[in-house]
Amino acid sequence: MIKVGIVGGTGYTGVELLRLLAQHPQAELKAITSRKDAGTAVNAMFPSLRGRVALAFSDPGSSPLKQCDVVFFATPNGVAMGEARALVDAGVRVIDLSADFRIKDVLEWERWYRMKHAAPELVAEAAYGLCEVNREAIRSARLVANPGCYPTAVQLGFLPLVEAGAVDLDHLIADAKSGVSGAGRKAEQHLLYGEASDNLAAYGVMGHRHWPEIRQGLAQLAGREVGLIFAPHLTPMIRGIHATLYARVTREMNFQTLYEQRFANDAFVDVMPAGSYPDTRSVRAANICRVAVHRPSESARRADTVVVLSVIDNMVKGASGQAVQNMNLMFGLPETTGLQQVAVVP
Amino acid sequence: MIKVGIVGGTGYTGVELLRLLAQHPQAELKAITSRKDAGTAVNAMFPSLRGRVALAFSDPGSSPLKQCDVVFFATPNGVAMGEARALVDAGVRVIDLSADFRIKDVLEWERWYRMKHAAPELVAEAAYGLCEVNREAIRSARLVANPGCYPTAVQLGFLPLVEAGAVDLDHLIADAKSGVSGAGRKAEQHLLYGEASDNLAAYGVMGHRHWPEIRQGLAQLAGREVGLIFAPHLTPMIRGIHATLYARVTREMNFQTLYEQRFANDAFVDVMPAGSYPDTRSVRAANICRVAVHRPSESARRADTVVVLSVIDNMVKGASGQAVQNMNLMFGLPETTGLQQVAVVP
Amino acid sequence: MIKVGIVGGTGYTGVELLRLLAQHPQAELKAITSRKDAGTAVNAMFPSLRGRVALAFSDPGSSPLKQCDVVFFATPNGVAMGEARALVDAGVRVIDLSADFRIKDVLEWERWYRMKHAAPELVAEAAYGLCEVNREAIRSARLVANPGCYPTAVQLGFLPLVEAGAVDLDHLIADAKSGVSGAGRKAEQHLLYGEASDNLAAYGVMGHRHWPEIRQGLAQLAGREVGLIFAPHLTPMIRGIHATLYARVTREMNFQTLYEQRFANDAFVDVMPAGSYPDTRSVRAANICRVAVHRPSESARRADTVVVLSVIDNMVKGASGQAVQNMNLMFGLPETTGLQQVAVVP
Amino acid sequence: MIKVGIVGGTGYTGVELLRLLAQHPQAELKAITSRKDAGTAVNAMFPSLRGRVALAFSDPGSSPLKQCDVVFFATPNGVAMGEARALVDAGVRVIDLSADFRIKDVLEWERWYRMKHAAPELVAEAAYGLCEVNREAIRSARLVANPGCYPTAVQLGFLPLVEAGAVDLDHLIADAKSGVSGAGRKAEQHLLYGEASDNLAAYGVMGHRHWPEIRQGLAQLAGREVGLIFAPHLTPMIRGIHATLYARVTREMNFQTLYEQRFANDAFVDVMPAGSYPDTRSVRAANICRVAVHRPSESARRADTVVVLSVIDNMVKGASGQAVQNMNLMFGLPETTGLQQVAVVP
Repeated sequence: MIKVGIVGGTGYTGVELLRLLAQHPQAELKAITSRKDAGTAVNAMFPSLRGRVALAFSDPGSSPLKQCDVVFFATPNGVAMGEARALVDAGVRVIDLSADFRIKDVLEWERWYRMKHAAPELVAEAAYGLCEVNREAIRSARLVANPGCYPTAVQLGFLPLVEAGAVDLDHLIADAKSGVSGAGRKAEQHLLYGEASDNLAAYGVMGHRHWPEIRQGLAQLAGREVGLIFAPHLTPMIRGIHATLYARVTREMNFQTLYEQRFANDAFVDVMPAGSYPDTRSVRAANICRVAVHRPSESARRADTVVVLSVIDNMVKGASGQAVQNMNLMFGLPETTGLQQVAVVP
Repeated sequence: MIKVGIVGGTGYTGVELLRLLAQHPQAELKAITSRKDAGTAVNAMFPSLRGRVALAFSDPGSSPLKQCDVVFFATPNGVAMGEARALVDAGVRVIDLSADFRIKDVLEWERWYRMKHAAPELVAEAAYGLCEVNREAIRSARLVANPGCYPTAVQLGFLPLVEAGAVDLDHLIADAKSGVSGAGRKAEQHLLYGEASDNLAAYGVMGHRHWPEIRQGLAQLAGREVGLIFAPHLTPMIRGIHATLYARVTREMNFQTLYEQRFANDAFVDVMPAGSYPDTRSVRAANICRVAVHRPSESARRADTVVVLSVIDNMVKGASGQAVQNMNLMFGLPETTGLQQVAVVP
Repeated sequence: MIKVGIVGGTGYTGVELLRLLAQHPQAELKAITSRKDAGTAVNAMFPSLRGRVALAFSDPGSSPLKQCDVVFFATPNGVAMGEARALVDAGVRVIDLSADFRIKDVLEWERWYRMKHAAPELVAEAAYGLCEVNREAIRSARLVANPGCYPTAVQLGFLPLVEAGAVDLDHLIADAKSGVSGAGRKAEQHLLYGEASDNLAAYGVMGHRHWPEIRQGLAQLAGREVGLIFAPHLTPMIRGIHATLYARVTREMNFQTLYEQRFANDAFVDVMPAGSYPDTRSVRAANICRVAVHRPSESARRADTVVVLSVIDNMVKGASGQAVQNMNLMFGLPETTGLQQVAVVP
Repeated sequence: MIKVGIVGGTGYTGVELLRLLAQHPQAELKAITSRKDAGTAVNAMFPSLRGRVALAFSDPGSSPLKQCDVVFFATPNGVAMGEARALVDAGVRVIDLSADFRIKDVLEWERWYRMKHAAPELVAEAAYGLCEVNREAIRSARLVANPGCYPTAVQLGFLPLVEAGAVDLDHLIADAKSGVSGAGRKAEQHLLYGEASDNLAAYGVMGHRHWPEIRQGLAQLAGREVGLIFAPHLTPMIRGIHATLYARVTREMNFQTLYEQRFANDAFVDVMPAGSYPDTRSVRAANICRVAVHRPSESARRADTVVVLSVIDNMVKGASGQAVQNMNLMFGLPETTGLQQVAVVP
């Protein structure tokens, strides 16, 4: 059994980690910390876990995190960078669900996250936890930077095109729609039911923290800088991201085949049949990314644009599920262990 | 492995059965029938099942249902009563998710369901599949009538009070709120998103088919007729039933203790701590009924009313999950086999 | 033109008041205050008001409230009681949308609202602004206590039965379902979209601030104390209250006729035909209460319970619309002036 | 008073027309037809109209449509083309909310709508009812083709850029998100609450009927063919369209000023301040299009893309409100008559 600790489990990625770990045959939850809620039973805060999680939140100072094999950080940005060092030095492997170790360029990270980085040397060491790209590095990593939700959906969607050098890399467009849980469990006015329900708006078109993360990932695949317009939208769903991706084709090929071959060995990427329209509920509560490639072909369309549809559950493949997938890789388990939940439809 | 067949799997109880059976370690799906969609791959209709269910819908006439150990009917009312006989005679055990075998009084059934019953003798034989009441009969039954969704929530909520003879049985009130999936996957105008979203209304106060089913169950517990007002409401949720139950106390006792003791051996009924307000999401996609008992005590309230809150997922404990629970009982498996999914929150 | 001021217009009742007053032919908005947002253009906070409301929020200290004919308080509880005195003394009429002046028994108010009342003498003077009950007192009032949302729906629903002495007054039950906007625009975790969407729970069954308000109103109608169980539920809608009311009949009469006659002269109460199920959307964004009376009559029901369904938009007839209705009465305008918006369906 | 008839008023555009006309000071509803529901009171089908619309649906054959000044067709495609001729010949002006007269190229229309056109000569005569483009033609038109919902949002959003020749016309991209009411009130399975709630998917990327309509409109503005990728998405809202538009800049200019000047005289297009993110609720139930122009400028973005955000209520500015706006123009009324409803927020 893998002894697991969680730092900061009162948010959405925390409760989702708990849901998945409670069903994982090889994980044993040893500690979950919360400064504010120390002493509260986890299942008093989340009655959905009654009968499944018996632990109480414990104070970070007195928690047996160093006796764990792996510690997940489900904390706001800026926490993990201060605490990971001690754990890694103690031989504990760390999976950070926040953004602290995602951006290799520390100056750029500091610009976007508006704080001084506390552990630049760990940034250099951290493996970026997009399993479908980085599997080998993750297996041996001491520290994994779990990808953001939008970056997961967008990178997996663009990946085959960029690797194949098939599209104009200077003008990629990612129009992404996210459920409200993507913004976390913070009590903020714009996330109230009364504000977010029956409503839709774009945000962050002029700059969003996931933009440099996506660009870094795509640039690594391409071996060069990429130009990207990223337009996220807040949509009235609890869970789900639908990324609609547009690129200008520069090299013709059979895109359906390209995608199917690229992801043939990835259990958690499902290339839908040509002509499909994946809906977000088809991955609800499941650790899957479903993608479909469209090539509008009508002559008058000047048919040189490819449209890719990529859906994930932002809480699972976009956060906690992917974190468990990383854990599986790090501990030599089959990648799918404990992640076989079927999507909840309807 | 239990060889399983499903008749009529294109509705919501059908796809939910498939979700649960795909994760059940002892079930092997052999056939799923649909006259209208014969030949269609199940996962083409429900992409959430891609990679998990490989079968296609088959024509009822040519399906190997008689080679199954158990057949579930996930059909509209009136189908199972015509087809169950042949299966039972062939030694196949049958679990009917429709209403065909729920009401023992055939004349009353015919009045409410507006058709002639095709198999009255099977009605007499059928075990009513509310496991927490009828466990022994279910184990040996050839035919199980799986309870309705409202009846499950309301009966489990009232059960300890009625068994204990603690309340006025002539004036029970059940105010129930259901998500829209409870009405099935029929293309009806009043179930459209544009009609049901951001909207709430009562219906069936003057008469609802679940009313006689609830009364039959409570009368059996009480050993006498009961009087019941049942007011269901359509609410803008996909899944979930919240039954708010009101009864006049005739015999004082510690109701919290009463409930905890009554359900101490029922894995799928969770008695919440005193003062709790169970929410429907705490059972979303999980086979659990959570109940809480309230006793408003302010003197001015003339404190003789007890209020019980009972929540289930209408698709799971209210339909397909309970059906699998019945299957487990019928085949000598631990009751919880394959039903350990943790509720999906948020 | 009536010169209007609003104190505290950044919440939901505030923006709804602005929507209604912007369309009112006899109202002229002179000032709207907000300590926190002084200087911000109203339509920068609420773009829906662009082109319709040109004012900015002003600091309470420097706002020309005393030059207004009427001032609405759309503030949290506890504000109006401190500020109304000065306005009333200056000859300004006051309509308070908060709870400060609703409960005549000051000690009881202090118990429920957990603060010392700052102006008990104004409580005694204030007219309770339920127009259908109190029309004459409102016309001449200097200070109107605008009713709460639940109390409006529940009192209007019970009103004819209680006035007629037709039901058991010791055992009234009000099961009420409210949209989330009823809780205001406060940034609280349990009101987040991720918490409140696709979810339903009861709350406050053991005690809710609207319970004494409803009891006071019904007791006044009855001329004696009443016993009431009040069970509110948070439901995933933006707007809308559906109150389902249960009472034991003690005196037989034609209830349909009773209701129609009682409300024959009330423009904003619509008695639906017998057998109707009013839905909340039928009053969305409109200043109407629709009610329907049901008498489940099946013999086995021991037919002595009457069920009343009462729906309002909590923001309109349950708050800001009723406040404007009160203003119309106070200034001698036809009661319907500026309140003729048709409900928005779908 | 303008004598108004409506053909086919049982769908969403019908009930929305009724809502608006009931509040229009110069319109008098004389007849509303429905073959299927003849004899039914309009307000029995739509209780939201109780007290406001007293008419019953009448049979088309016996309805006094020819005595009307104007007749609206709120019918499925293919009906108006068969019936408009007789009305126009009788001197009745016609506003068709369906697609029958929108596409000037009859062969293209027949290809997309899969039927033979019954009145090609009326297509030639019809004025396309996008008031902000076609005001003069509409004033004198006998027959107006009211634009589709997506085409309204997309054309108004692109309009200034295309008129100014500022962008690459061969590679326009319109990523549009629509509420479910846009699909009408048809009882279709994919529009059920259980299917469309908490879910999002693209559709019609490979071909949608609004694509030729948008291209025709933009081509007319540009004086040449345009290339357009149009990706509509079904989103879980009742009302609202959010069009996110992408174009490559070919000629630099101050786009904020361009938009403000272009729409300076259009009461129903609101150009938001630079940096704004219009949300769909800011136009809910109101006849307004709000637009904002964004120019992501970070150097690494290769800043040559302009992003335009355009929101409407698909039922109002995207259908029935625009139809009334057309009626106002046709009858010499101020364009805003009866269309001053403030958006309903929250």
